[in-house]
Amino acid sequence: MRHSVLHAPTLKEAPKEAEVPSHALLTRAGFIRKEAAGIYSFLPLAIRTLSKIERIIREELERAGAQEVLLPTVQPAELWMESERWQKYGPELLRFKDRKGNDFCYSPTAEEVITSLVRRDVRSYRQLPVNLFQIANKFRDEIRPRAGLMRGREFIMKDGYSFDSDEAGATRTYQAMFDAYNRIFERCGLAFRPVEADTGAIGGSRSHEFQVLADTGEDSIVSCAACGYTANVEKAEVQRTSPAVAAAGGRFEAVATPGKRSIEDVSRFLGVTPAQVLKTLYVDTDAGPVLVLIRGDRTLNEVKLKSALKAQWIRLDVEPTHDLVAGFMGPIKLPAAAAKLRVVADDSVGTLTDFVCGGNEADVHLRHAERSDLPALGDTLDLSMAGAADPCGRCGGAFAFFRGIEVGHVFFLGTKYSLPMQCNFLDKDGAERPMVMGCYGIGVSRIMAAAVEQNHDAQGVKWPLPIAPFEVAILGLQWDDEGVVAAARELYEGLRAEGVDVLWDDRELRPGQKFADADLIGHPLQVLVGRRGLDQGVVEFKDRRSGERLNLPRVDAIATIVARVQAARKGLGG
Amino acid sequence: MRHSVLHAPTLKEAPKEAEVPSHALLTRAGFIRKEAAGIYSFLPLAIRTLSKIERIIREELERAGAQEVLLPTVQPAELWMESERWQKYGPELLRFKDRKGNDFCYSPTAEEVITSLVRRDVRSYRQLPVNLFQIANKFRDEIRPRAGLMRGREFIMKDGYSFDSDEAGATRTYQAMFDAYNRIFERCGLAFRPVEADTGAIGGSRSHEFQVLADTGEDSIVSCAACGYTANVEKAEVQRTSPAVAAAGGRFEAVATPGKRSIEDVSRFLGVTPAQVLKTLYVDTDAGPVLVLIRGDRTLNEVKLKSALKAQWIRLDVEPTHDLVAGFMGPIKLPAAAAKLRVVADDSVGTLTDFVCGGNEADVHLRHAERSDLPALGDTLDLSMAGAADPCGRCGGAFAFFRGIEVGHVFFLGTKYSLPMQCNFLDKDGAERPMVMGCYGIGVSRIMAAAVEQNHDAQGVKWPLPIAPFEVAILGLQWDDEGVVAAARELYEGLRAEGVDVLWDDRELRPGQKFADADLIGHPLQVLVGRRGLDQGVVEFKDRRSGERLNLPRVDAIATIVARVQAARKGLGG
Repeated sequence: MRHSVLHAPTLKEAPKEAEVPSHALLTRAGFIRKEAAGIYSFLPLAIRTLSKIERIIREELERAGAQEVLLPTVQPAELWMESERWQKYGPELLRFKDRKGNDFCYSPTAEEVITSLVRRDVRSYRQLPVNLFQIANKFRDEIRPRAGLMRGREFIMKDGYSFDSDEAGATRTYQAMFDAYNRIFERCGLAFRPVEADTGAIGGSRSHEFQVLADTGEDSIVSCAACGYTANVEKAEVQRTSPAVAAAGGRFEAVATPGKRSIEDVSRFLGVTPAQVLKTLYVDTDAGPVLVLIRGDRTLNEVKLKSALKAQWIRLDVEPTHDLVAGFMGPIKLPAAAAKLRVVADDSVGTLTDFVCGGNEADVHLRHAERSDLPALGDTLDLSMAGAADPCGRCGGAFAFFRGIEVGHVFFLGTKYSLPMQCNFLDKDGAERPMVMGCYGIGVSRIMAAAVEQNHDAQGVKWPLPIAPFEVAILGLQWDDEGVVAAARELYEGLRAEGVDVLWDDRELRPGQKFADADLIGHPLQVLVGRRGLDQGVVEFKDRRSGERLNLPRVDAIATIVARVQAARKGLGG
Repeated sequence: MRHSVLHAPTLKEAPKEAEVPSHALLTRAGFIRKEAAGIYSFLPLAIRTLSKIERIIREELERAGAQEVLLPTVQPAELWMESERWQKYGPELLRFKDRKGNDFCYSPTAEEVITSLVRRDVRSYRQLPVNLFQIANKFRDEIRPRAGLMRGREFIMKDGYSFDSDEAGATRTYQAMFDAYNRIFERCGLAFRPVEADTGAIGGSRSHEFQVLADTGEDSIVSCAACGYTANVEKAEVQRTSPAVAAAGGRFEAVATPGKRSIEDVSRFLGVTPAQVLKTLYVDTDAGPVLVLIRGDRTLNEVKLKSALKAQWIRLDVEPTHDLVAGFMGPIKLPAAAAKLRVVADDSVGTLTDFVCGGNEADVHLRHAERSDLPALGDTLDLSMAGAADPCGRCGGAFAFFRGIEVGHVFFLGTKYSLPMQCNFLDKDGAERPMVMGCYGIGVSRIMAAAVEQNHDAQGVKWPLPIAPFEVAILGLQWDDEGVVAAARELYEGLRAEGVDVLWDDRELRPGQKFADADLIGHPLQVLVGRRGLDQGVVEFKDRRSGERLNLPRVDAIATIVARVQAARKGLGG
């Protein structure tokens, strides 16, 4: 394509609200434009990158046995009521009425519609497995859309759903999808990790996230160098410690701690370490308030807590009730009103002895408390956020921490949807059984943003070649020099004839503007055709990613560039 | 692909509400499933057909200089207020609020968003022309969704928009799009006609529809064999007649016509022809009521009337006010209350002499009226629906009538959106001027339905090969005969190696079920591999569209079929 006719308006300034490089660079380089909070238009450069990503996704999913469908974005409430997500989903679900007053929502995912589709048409084990996917717009009404495409409201997602006749089959399908996802992100040219993940609101019993590694990622990933265990920090298992034998209690005493509410303030005031303080948290949940005990040096992992409580939602930012006093709560001498509250404790509580905790009156803590002073706790749970000092939950090895951007997620759903929605089949013996499901998502537009987060510098994007809008850019440096134009055109035609995806910057602009745009847009391979080089019989070749520059004799240029493209293209090998 | 793993559930029965063949057949053949009124899921066979249609569209539009973008489906009300369509669009526009209470709509088209996009980034004549398109879901909240995909609510549409610096440039772009549309529908293998059309609510000054010819089409098209003029009947120009000199008036007399309200009843009762009666219609509009006069043998064309009045809406199904009496209205001796109503007259009124009209009292008509008895009418207008007896408005030749399905529409918009939305540019002299726009739509999912309406029989679909889900189906007739399986597999592998898009029906089913499914799904070329044929060294070849059947020696089969495919494939030649 010739740049003079390409609609790729570049900007000198990033939008003021741009917090992350992908938002700034995709806007500046003419890939996206904002239409409303979290809602973007994709310009031609973005369409080129997205269609390359989508092609890789389609090829790998089809190779793995999945088939493409397209489900409506406007979905009837009735189906969402069957799964009870109509009631349980928060305001992120965009709901509206049609002209006749019937309730609908804009699909944020499509478990309900696909389950309804499959239960109507699949009746026999002979028709299973079924594995369907779509690439379609989704809408999630985020309360704070931000970071451009990273957390938008309308976005492009690949969502897939599998239906098997039994757990073994569903496990095979899950593995096939897991493998396909690895190939997809590899072929996109991204550095990524599959990590064990919490199953969240979608539910189910097994789940992996695919995280593109980037310092700007909002997810934290821990990985054990010793055993390879890799997980989202939300889920990462910390090595469990057996509780030590509890010392005899009854020695605790009240001590005045005026205005000392935080663990830090209390421990400093009383001359103990945070690890010698028992922290008590008041947590509101859909099943009522819960008190959570955790050692003062540990951070509560809300995702683990929510999962352990099997709660629909939990809230920590609430004022305690039941006569509890914020900042001075403790599990000993609970107020009568709070005596029946559920209490859960993190494993770390099992290591405490001679500790400090809140005294359940304003400005009072207890010290010299022992675990035998506590009400009966039952089994402690893993509720801590993994920290740098924690041993790996699998092998005791050392954790390394990464930042990542979630671009894919595979869930083993089991019968979470097929049971309530009666998505059943007749097995070989004629018995009716629920199908065993999996679901598999990829954030298509988010891959584009994550690729930029991982691959950029101050000048612009450095696209991995398989998903770059163009593989090669030819920059004609003197647009008014006939010899330069002719040489650029010859290269352009020659590369096109070899099947290279090439942009020819033929605009009537100064070389500096062309260099800047080429680096901003992020063309991975660039060829600079200028008068000076031509006089010496060469063109200049530049690898945007490695920074390598070299002069190519004009006669070899096409062959050399084609070889470079083919080497970098392996991702699109199919 | 092997049929045993293809998710293509076929049904014996069509849905009860299916009114048209495409709805019945696409459902029965496993292409679509209904999720709510006018809302459908597309199954894998449909995705194959749609992606072939989309590929043809993309290739031809890009060849014609258009570039692909993707605009959000959820669009902010502010933009729609700028164009005033937020106020003017009826309940077909699906409106809703996000969680913060801001107004949005689901895009039925995207003039506002694209105009906003272009005005932000394009400032200079040097950046023009710009021609952008997208393929995306649209939603129109039809009051009576019906006929399956033919008039659905959520559907796939290609919408494109062009921006030029002047009328001449915009005219060239319009022509380029017109030509591209012709190539697109030709390559899809459809019989179609471009026809002159009314510009409707989108507005603008020039417009063509692309109509796929089918007896079940809801549009009526007239075409003049003499001069080639082809138009939607809504727009078709009828030959205009110069008014004859009016005879002297004052001879009219009242006559009792008890209970005779229709033209038919009145003319029969008074012994005149309908062409001797003046029909008076009371029409409500957004600018107040209007009386419309037309000869009794003609039908009012509401689209022409709305356009002539420049009305936002018109309604004929209303009770008259202003002391007018339904069934007995006439332009002579109007009640005082109605004397100031606007009166417009069809050209046909100019031919009337010695005619009958309503007497403006119940059960009374006037006869022996003359045009000189009427209030001053000004110029008469072309407000008639073209009929079989009408001469062509261009050349006076004879009209032929067709039924069609509108699958594409090109509009010359001019400055309809760029003026109110201030989509301006600086011309060569530095003066600010509005861009001149065009817009161009294709009903992508509707093409699929229209292709079925045009190409089917009682057994099922007869796809044009370029948009068939598979080009060739191989039917292995005895699944338990190893020789048959081996021969089918050999053909399958051989055709795949030649790049043919082939389905192998390897299911463990009786031959009759395979024949029925193959004809229902509508595979254009079918190869029947059976024991009896193999014993004679042949396979049977069947052309679904022509009905041709012939035996092919096994040794020649692949070469012959490849040649047939290539001949039928010309549509995908690129």
